Amino acid sequence: MSKQRWPERMPSGRIAYVNGRYVPHGAAGVHIEDRALQFADGIYEVVGIVDGVFLDEEEHLDRLERSVAEIGMAMPHNRAALKIVVREIARRNRVRNGLIYMQVTRGVSRRDHPVPEQAPRPSLILTARHLDPAETARKHDQGVKVVTQPDQRWARCDIKSTALLPNVLAKTAARKAGAYEAWLVDLAGYVTEGSSTSAWIVDADGQIRTRDLSNAILPGVTRLVLMEAAHEAQISISERKFTVAEALAAKEAFLTAASAGALPIVAIDGHLVGNGKPGPVTRRLQELYRQRTESRAKTLG
Amino acid sequence: MSKQRWPERMPSGRIAYVNGRYVPHGAAGVHIEDRALQFADGIYEVVGIVDGVFLDEEEHLDRLERSVAEIGMAMPHNRAALKIVVREIARRNRVRNGLIYMQVTRGVSRRDHPVPEQAPRPSLILTARHLDPAETARKHDQGVKVVTQPDQRWARCDIKSTALLPNVLAKTAARKAGAYEAWLVDLAGYVTEGSSTSAWIVDADGQIRTRDLSNAILPGVTRLVLMEAAHEAQISISERKFTVAEALAAKEAFLTAASAGALPIVAIDGHLVGNGKPGPVTRRLQELYRQRTESRAKTLG
Repeated sequence: MSKQRWPERMPSGRIAYVNGRYVPHGAAGVHIEDRALQFADGIYEVVGIVDGVFLDEEEHLDRLERSVAEIGMAMPHNRAALKIVVREIARRNRVRNGLIYMQVTRGVSRRDHPVPEQAPRPSLILTARHLDPAETARKHDQGVKVVTQPDQRWARCDIKSTALLPNVLAKTAARKAGAYEAWLVDLAGYVTEGSSTSAWIVDADGQIRTRDLSNAILPGVTRLVLMEAAHEAQISISERKFTVAEALAAKEAFLTAASAGALPIVAIDGHLVGNGKPGPVTRRLQELYRQRTESRAKTLG
Repeated sequence: MSKQRWPERMPSGRIAYVNGRYVPHGAAGVHIEDRALQFADGIYEVVGIVDGVFLDEEEHLDRLERSVAEIGMAMPHNRAALKIVVREIARRNRVRNGLIYMQVTRGVSRRDHPVPEQAPRPSLILTARHLDPAETARKHDQGVKVVTQPDQRWARCDIKSTALLPNVLAKTAARKAGAYEAWLVDLAGYVTEGSSTSAWIVDADGQIRTRDLSNAILPGVTRLVLMEAAHEAQISISERKFTVAEALAAKEAFLTAASAGALPIVAIDGHLVGNGKPGPVTRRLQELYRQRTESRAKTLG
């Protein structure tokens, strides 16, 4: 690949991990017959890092292993080895606030739809990037807007696969409409989740609601950890799907994501949520999530 | 990428085309942040070659351009330039009977779900492979088996995107069941299409049927050309979806694909179709398709 040049200029100094090697980001590639490139035959996870602490890492690795198993793939390494790579890629990129992206693919094989009987060696790719904590704080202070979009995804959204084109198209439509995220709506008019985040409301009766787990949504890690934190604080959460109309009538709305915790939503399809400002329940949950990840970091550390 | 090694042994001698360069297949790569790898943000086509003739090339390029436009992407080259690359990749790989695979991706960009406002340069990848005409002929003589699988794909199957994980899982399940292809079945019990082929029956009344075009199926190129050939021969085809029960009661069944023309299906879910042998209507259609591509090849020179 010495003669290969990538079409875009790459930032210098970043290091990626690809199949056992730490390589300069600009030179990090996979073969054109990697099945993730040709068939979306891959699984991924994103782990947040705040002040040097990996957020909910075990839960992310649980989900990674589950998704990989669901599509009949093997993990390239055991968890202990993977965690070493996660730490090393963060260290080499000097990321104290940011994200670790990890992707496991079916590997390289002559193009043919079915998974080869002799499974190729899975590919493992990791990258790290910085996030500006001030930017995240600004989003939490001001809240973000969402717009609704039809949910056009496949029937197994519980698998965190790289077959993300429907999510890409929905999120792109949202950004073009001046919103941060798209809330996806099923054929019956219920919100499933965001294009890359979990969806929540505090409904007109004051009940915190998020859709129940099924094949229709990803089992959000931040969703799970937030629910545990709320449970400990004796705050009730109802796992019950809601319609767009219920969301528009809600007192508060928010989304959860590995990169953001609980992020207030202040407008849906151009209509203000509540008074159009981040609400007290969202702020309380975000504080509980923050405390929980902090206390876990101390336990681990 | 000089230090990069791919996990699997690559066949020697093959040449691939990647972003303006002809490179040895084993060294042909894309960057890890190519959006097709991380987001299935790519479109593809496969063109068959029989005795040195490119089958239905214009129709495949029509569909490629349509799919690319549907996801808001630009073609990396105009059609004339692309056709030159198609010919050159066939020539360099000495393919007289086989397939050309071409993939257009959104290009390389720092990972983020929405399409970047400043669109990166699309990636263009082509590969060529040989098919053994004797193997294809054997399939036509003996027919193939299919099994039904739930259609778990997204809502825009009319776009030929690389978000193929549902197709991969269905085809893999079919192969494990000893079948060549999976016929996908929608929630109402109707066959949509195969995981990578169009689905047809000659129903109990002798009517040739294939599902009408919609977002639920890919507008098959071989399907289109076969319909034109049938029309010229004054053979009636009904574009009307059929249930699994209708398929099981059919006189004949077949699939169409760029790699196969009209291929007889002799069993569905373990039940013989008709007498379990390729039927006369399928053979007649295959002959019409063959004649049509032959006469078009002569017209093109």
